[in-house]
Amino acid sequence: MTRDISDNEAERHRQKMVNRKTVQDAEVAAKTIEKGLLMINTGPGKGKSTAAFGLALRMLGTGRRVGVVQFIKGAWSTGEQQALTLFGDKVVWRTMGEGFTWDTQDLKRDVAAATKAWEEAKVLMADETIGLLILDELNIALRYDYLPLEEVVETLSSRRPDLHVIVTGRNAKQPLIDAADMVTDMTLVKHHFKAGVKAQAGIEF
Amino acid sequence: MTRDISDNEAERHRQKMVNRKTVQDAEVAAKTIEKGLLMINTGPGKGKSTAAFGLALRMLGTGRRVGVVQFIKGAWSTGEQQALTLFGDKVVWRTMGEGFTWDTQDLKRDVAAATKAWEEAKVLMADETIGLLILDELNIALRYDYLPLEEVVETLSSRRPDLHVIVTGRNAKQPLIDAADMVTDMTLVKHHFKAGVKAQAGIEF
Repeated sequence: MTRDISDNEAERHRQKMVNRKTVQDAEVAAKTIEKGLLMINTGPGKGKSTAAFGLALRMLGTGRRVGVVQFIKGAWSTGEQQALTLFGDKVVWRTMGEGFTWDTQDLKRDVAAATKAWEEAKVLMADETIGLLILDELNIALRYDYLPLEEVVETLSSRRPDLHVIVTGRNAKQPLIDAADMVTDMTLVKHHFKAGVKAQAGIEF
Repeated sequence: MTRDISDNEAERHRQKMVNRKTVQDAEVAAKTIEKGLLMINTGPGKGKSTAAFGLALRMLGTGRRVGVVQFIKGAWSTGEQQALTLFGDKVVWRTMGEGFTWDTQDLKRDVAAATKAWEEAKVLMADETIGLLILDELNIALRYDYLPLEEVVETLSSRRPDLHVIVTGRNAKQPLIDAADMVTDMTLVKHHFKAGVKAQAGIEF
């Protein structure tokens, strides 16, 4: 059922929106800088890797290539990997992690895998055909001190100026947040796991 | 440079991870329910629509179809639309909104467009070939009272049990949050627009 709107209400709305548009247009006009962004998706809520994944699709839609380095295997679904195969060599995919730390139970192997992943990330950072680089779960590798934080922040900060980078994972370190252009904290308001719902195909994997 | 790890440290780590895995396995085993989820991505931060978009890709990777109803035109990029055309008729796309409310400046038209979008959403809810329905920016239509909140919540709550629905947009209404299985608030920690960076291809559109 469509709600009734009086002419009076419609006119008040129009006036308000005319004013809003003036503000909006001025805001847009004031933004003039173009640059590669360092973006972070962190926090305990759902959507960190998924949003990075959506951003990959957005970038692919513009025709540019996307690089993905997975620091922890298993964070991205086979569903996503399958979907991305449709884009052929427009997507460069590197899965370096060996699984969750509680699965490997082997610190030396975890550190070696993270180090190898970081080396691979640096190679992709230098590849000028790539417009967006996703460093999936890099925050986890930093949190457990698998990688030297200072070097990672420095390398990311001195990357080529047109490269967009997105880092995902809980507990982003403060120096990385300080260096970033955009930081979103995915805050958990409510999660179905708490209600006993299991991981399901198409949602969690 | 890989960091040094003593055998002692490695063993302490191993013990800790064995314990963690026990907890983790018990948690997974306790989750047995399978059901279509009502999910909400809200909050002022970046990633609400992008994460829904990523979820679409995940669902498509499993071979099931995805429906998208855009209540506000312009929230999704042409880049995303282009990327999704690769999936052919696996994606059902309905753009019903007429643009941002400050662009249309026409309350009656906004309400008519939202009503039409909601009718379309109900058609897609009944389509059993669809595994995930994205109601993009529905929260905006509800916030401005373009649609009757009670009817929307009731219809979503009584949908077929295997349908996953994700609703995006700022300022989700409390009754919708109460009805949802999963709610993520994308909290804005830092945004590049504040620093004068403009909207860029592959990132914002």
